[in-house]
Amino acid sequence: MNAKRSMNKKDFMRGAIQLSKEKMLENNGGPFGAVIVKDGRIIAEGYNQVTSRNDPTAHAEIVAIRKACDELNTFHLTGSEIYCSCEPCLMCLSAIYWARIEKIYYANSREDARLIGFDDDLIYEELSRERQYRKIPAVQLLPEEGKEAFKAWEEKVDKTLY
Amino acid sequence: MNAKRSMNKKDFMRGAIQLSKEKMLENNGGPFGAVIVKDGRIIAEGYNQVTSRNDPTAHAEIVAIRKACDELNTFHLTGSEIYCSCEPCLMCLSAIYWARIEKIYYANSREDARLIGFDDDLIYEELSRERQYRKIPAVQLLPEEGKEAFKAWEEKVDKTLY
Repeated sequence: MNAKRSMNKKDFMRGAIQLSKEKMLENNGGPFGAVIVKDGRIIAEGYNQVTSRNDPTAHAEIVAIRKACDELNTFHLTGSEIYCSCEPCLMCLSAIYWARIEKIYYANSREDARLIGFDDDLIYEELSRERQYRKIPAVQLLPEEGKEAFKAWEEKVDKTLY
Repeated sequence: MNAKRSMNKKDFMRGAIQLSKEKMLENNGGPFGAVIVKDGRIIAEGYNQVTSRNDPTAHAEIVAIRKACDELNTFHLTGSEIYCSCEPCLMCLSAIYWARIEKIYYANSREDARLIGFDDDLIYEELSRERQYRKIPAVQLLPEEGKEAFKAWEEKVDKTLY
């Protein structure tokens, strides 16, 4: 039983790795693929399409999450696992949390990615700096007016929580 | 001149705040809006559509970035600023870095968001834990096979860098 589960995991990962190579060679984007699995079945696949779709958010994991949610008609992927050909960047890692995926498998590590020029260290480093002193500074503006929308959300009786 | 620039910034932010309230009241999602500006002109707007589109990645900023890139036919938004009705979550902050937006303005802070139930503290906390011990554990699988795609990327002569 364990041997069988273990083989399935490797199969899923091989699928993600295959996407990462094939779709990159077809000029879709960087060498990254992802497969989302629920109840032992592949729900969705994704591969990097940043340069072909002109979408800096079209990382393999984001593409796969959007497809999986569309497929299952839900905004939460509870009970799912994601197989990533490379450890997710901070954007994708956060998306995985928002999507409530429950486990991540990855082949290449962040360190491996850095060696071929894909580096999210800067973003990690920025988090330790005060917002206004980052390379992309964040400045607060009109906080009192902003709060009106939050108050309206709190008062809304028929809201859909997520 | 300074007064005029300052007014424009407030106008852009008011646009983001208005989206955050109106689109939420129309049941598109949570109370979040964003406006991307380049050369003093609004390139794209976005609002949260997580629950209406079944897309956990459809935060205001991500929606706006995708639209702005589509509008400008590019995967980099160099020279742009983003006006967010709330400080970006870690997913959106990372997307802003990947998109090469140059400045962030926000009205509500992360702390304000937490007070109405939108909390990305968990994701920040997870970053200090070893990958395999996180609430969403990350486990490495088939690293040697994964490297094949990275090697193919390095060897590809006609690749588009991003």
